[in-house]
Amino acid sequence: MAAEIKDRIRTIPDHPKPGIQFRDIMTLLQDPIGLNLSVQQILASWTGERVDKVAGIEARGFILGGAIAVALEAGFVAVRKAGKLPHTTIGVDYDLEYGTDRVEIHTDAIHEGERILLVDDLIATGGTALAAIDLIEQSGGVIVGCGFVIDLPDLGGSEKIRKRGFTVSSLCAFEGE
Amino acid sequence: MAAEIKDRIRTIPDHPKPGIQFRDIMTLLQDPIGLNLSVQQILASWTGERVDKVAGIEARGFILGGAIAVALEAGFVAVRKAGKLPHTTIGVDYDLEYGTDRVEIHTDAIHEGERILLVDDLIATGGTALAAIDLIEQSGGVIVGCGFVIDLPDLGGSEKIRKRGFTVSSLCAFEGE
Repeated sequence: MAAEIKDRIRTIPDHPKPGIQFRDIMTLLQDPIGLNLSVQQILASWTGERVDKVAGIEARGFILGGAIAVALEAGFVAVRKAGKLPHTTIGVDYDLEYGTDRVEIHTDAIHEGERILLVDDLIATGGTALAAIDLIEQSGGVIVGCGFVIDLPDLGGSEKIRKRGFTVSSLCAFEGE
Repeated sequence: MAAEIKDRIRTIPDHPKPGIQFRDIMTLLQDPIGLNLSVQQILASWTGERVDKVAGIEARGFILGGAIAVALEAGFVAVRKAGKLPHTTIGVDYDLEYGTDRVEIHTDAIHEGERILLVDDLIATGGTALAAIDLIEQSGGVIVGCGFVIDLPDLGGSEKIRKRGFTVSSLCAFEGE
């Protein structure tokens, strides 16, 4: 199953800088079969779970997140970069290799006790995903789990999320990153 | 039908600057019924049309664009801001009130003769949408039409697109903007 996904992902060597193998999911998503398989396989990991809302991380997480929310008859919550949401927000800062970044959600996006599935294209070091988890929990949401297309396990993000007690599913992995 | 959509859109007065009524679709999309209705109603405008790919405009156009692509068993193409796509791109510059902006797609995202539905949350002056149309046509794509949640008809974008000969559908309109 993973090969059907992995074979449709393009690797761009030395992007955005030397030594980084960039995994480009656009070739997966622009293929009708690849897009459909990605959605079906992410959904398959959460069969039987009640999901009230899907939280997608800007910007690539919006593409699959919206589709998965519709399939689950759930709502969609945007986890956005700082300053992009027009109404009152809460935010969480997280460390990058150099400096910090910040993600935000609207304060009224998630209600107490709502069950939230977090979706993004890729899990690497996990900085953004863990910040998104904090935002969801601060809003009173209950994390059902985290679904990604790609895991880069050597960068440790999926392991960090599991150590926090959450279920992580990914459709394929690239090792040795 | 339009009221079911319109009543779920939040208006934020004087955002991002005095005199602008910002139409916030996040309240529509975070509501499971609102999200589902939005997708179903956009789809209803294109019944019977063959669509090979849905092009969504960054970033809000990704949320509904991905869902609509899955529903149509089409692929998804990202129309992104300059510098965001990792592989070879073509771009089109367009005028803003002050200065210019640029949107890009991957050169291999659309093949000659593919039928493309363009999706975004809102059509205002039409600068971004018209630039996206140019990108799709430069790539050899055939525009099936353009689907938006919100039209601000007084800003003239939907009229400009229709004058170019393309079909525009929107789920609701806010006049007097």
